[in-house]
Amino acid sequence: MKVNGKNFRTIWLKPDDETVVQLIDQRFLPHRFVIEEVRNVAQMATAIREMHVRGAGLIGASAGYGMYLAALEAAACNDGADVNEQLARAAGKLNATRPTAVNLSWAVQRQLKNIAEGKDANEKVAIALDTAKLIADQDAEHCRMIGQHGLKLIREIVRKKAGEPVNVLTHCNAGWLAFVDYGSATAPIYAAHDSGLLVNVWVAETRPRNQGSKLTAWELGQHGVPHTIIADSAAGHLMQRGAVDLVIVGTDRTTYTGDVANKIGTYLKALAARHNGVPFYVALPSSSFDWMLRDGLKEIPIEKRSPDEVTCADGWFEGQHVDVRVAPEGSPAANYGFDITPANLVTGLITERGICEAKENSIRALFPLQSL
Amino acid sequence: MKVNGKNFRTIWLKPDDETVVQLIDQRFLPHRFVIEEVRNVAQMATAIREMHVRGAGLIGASAGYGMYLAALEAAACNDGADVNEQLARAAGKLNATRPTAVNLSWAVQRQLKNIAEGKDANEKVAIALDTAKLIADQDAEHCRMIGQHGLKLIREIVRKKAGEPVNVLTHCNAGWLAFVDYGSATAPIYAAHDSGLLVNVWVAETRPRNQGSKLTAWELGQHGVPHTIIADSAAGHLMQRGAVDLVIVGTDRTTYTGDVANKIGTYLKALAARHNGVPFYVALPSSSFDWMLRDGLKEIPIEKRSPDEVTCADGWFEGQHVDVRVAPEGSPAANYGFDITPANLVTGLITERGICEAKENSIRALFPLQSL
Repeated sequence: MKVNGKNFRTIWLKPDDETVVQLIDQRFLPHRFVIEEVRNVAQMATAIREMHVRGAGLIGASAGYGMYLAALEAAACNDGADVNEQLARAAGKLNATRPTAVNLSWAVQRQLKNIAEGKDANEKVAIALDTAKLIADQDAEHCRMIGQHGLKLIREIVRKKAGEPVNVLTHCNAGWLAFVDYGSATAPIYAAHDSGLLVNVWVAETRPRNQGSKLTAWELGQHGVPHTIIADSAAGHLMQRGAVDLVIVGTDRTTYTGDVANKIGTYLKALAARHNGVPFYVALPSSSFDWMLRDGLKEIPIEKRSPDEVTCADGWFEGQHVDVRVAPEGSPAANYGFDITPANLVTGLITERGICEAKENSIRALFPLQSL
Repeated sequence: MKVNGKNFRTIWLKPDDETVVQLIDQRFLPHRFVIEEVRNVAQMATAIREMHVRGAGLIGASAGYGMYLAALEAAACNDGADVNEQLARAAGKLNATRPTAVNLSWAVQRQLKNIAEGKDANEKVAIALDTAKLIADQDAEHCRMIGQHGLKLIREIVRKKAGEPVNVLTHCNAGWLAFVDYGSATAPIYAAHDSGLLVNVWVAETRPRNQGSKLTAWELGQHGVPHTIIADSAAGHLMQRGAVDLVIVGTDRTTYTGDVANKIGTYLKALAARHNGVPFYVALPSSSFDWMLRDGLKEIPIEKRSPDEVTCADGWFEGQHVDVRVAPEGSPAANYGFDITPANLVTGLITERGICEAKENSIRALFPLQSL
């Protein structure tokens, strides 16, 4: 999507030197746009671990490119070490960066399997390059298709709005910054905006890490999509007043029965949507389905993060990125990363293959093979 | 309640000089405990307008003391000006500080009416002093009674918990810092804690102004009540997991039909409580009822505040109180101060006269005269 009027992905090969991977270092957003050059697997592991890149789709693509860099290093190495052994070490290093991200291990595994087909180091490099590109391109293509399917929902609302903009509310960042391009929850929004439809986005700031106000607001603004940041608490008030036509959020993991794990606060927005008759959709590439889990509330573990994220806030002060202390020094805090929105609060799922209900039979109808 | 082991109110007369009012300057909380001396009505108007003091009950008490300071000034004034004229000017000055706070004009009016009975300047001062003390004492007494009635609810839950602490969730600051003492939502909590019951409080941080993490956490901590700060978004998750036994919030205004205007985000917590079978109570002195309004959603105006409160966060950094910018410079924000929780989501109202349902007939049964 657009940054300063130019099209970008979140990760790509350096145009004049395909041995270098470039990516947007998201730690500095929204206040600085920094492009990082990654030249080896150790640097890529750092970029994933230290969250220069984040978001399920982008972590997968980064791991794919990381394995390509590992193959390059192995091919260039003259110390007689076994190439496969080097690649296995690299895989272990990448897998250890963010142990809960399912796309990460999936991408690493896919690379290892494909690279194993290569007869020599150079062929392995070529395969790793093709696979890395394919993982990234598929991620972008799935998001693009989510956009096309979700666009139909927005078009339906446009018909009823008589020239007024369609108001979409979203939470956290399920935008292109979390994937390679387009995003999941944002893909229908970008598709609608690029088709000339009037869309206005309510961006929930998403405490405690503020991915909404830092990342989603930034990417929408850069692409020229009208948007307004709100405190998370304001979502109910807006829906009560008829100011939201549609909620679209992303997901970190969705069970094959339609229970949705997503950033803490998603569940409250789903409750408000239900109470006010607002459609509540979850946009996801099929890689975010968990085909093993039936009961989201019982089976999906909820990550507890550092209490400092709640007792403090970070932002920019006189050009510096600083953490300010808000709460009293002695007060403890609890920081739950995600919550579960039960399937019965979800109007539908927007996937790369189309829209389905958040119900086992409807999901299986779209994805018959994965669910076996 | 206790601060550093000593009992405090939020406002009081200086023990060795009753011509001076002392108050806790809340702008520096939770990081500094500052007591301000207020010596004339102009200083009191500043203290109210600049939010050294805030909260419905405390604003009323401050206005009461402000009128007492005005009477003192008028009595001391030898310029021949009419005492009643001077008091009317002072009343106008105080009323203009926070135009929406109903307790403010109520306290000023009560003072004007009582002071008018005084035959000379000295008698007027004596009456103003008595009235100021009475307004403050009544506020504290109403909150104390709310505590006693709410305590019964907590005792009932204690019986079911088999020695486990009772988990109460609250939002914003409806604590003693918003009144003269005890608070509204916190009064039952303090009463339970002081009775030796095990209570644990989930304190929602209450973005964008963070009155929960700044004020409620501080006052609970100072009084020794176990508590844990959470992001506003975490309330649903906690209720879903059975970690909340009872929600108690305050209110800025409640219709005589039981619709509750309170800090933005209250409505989402009420929805989560309903969805998970958690009792949701609103604690209020009868001064917070609006006996003129039937329909909270249609009739209570919702204040829109500065977008800067949403795009920024304030806290302490290297000993300084600073505002950090979180959102991108170009992104607009909307900042709604309050929302409406419809009466049918409210389990009950805890008032100084007892607990009633959030229904017209039940409210009128407790307050037959006010509702005429």
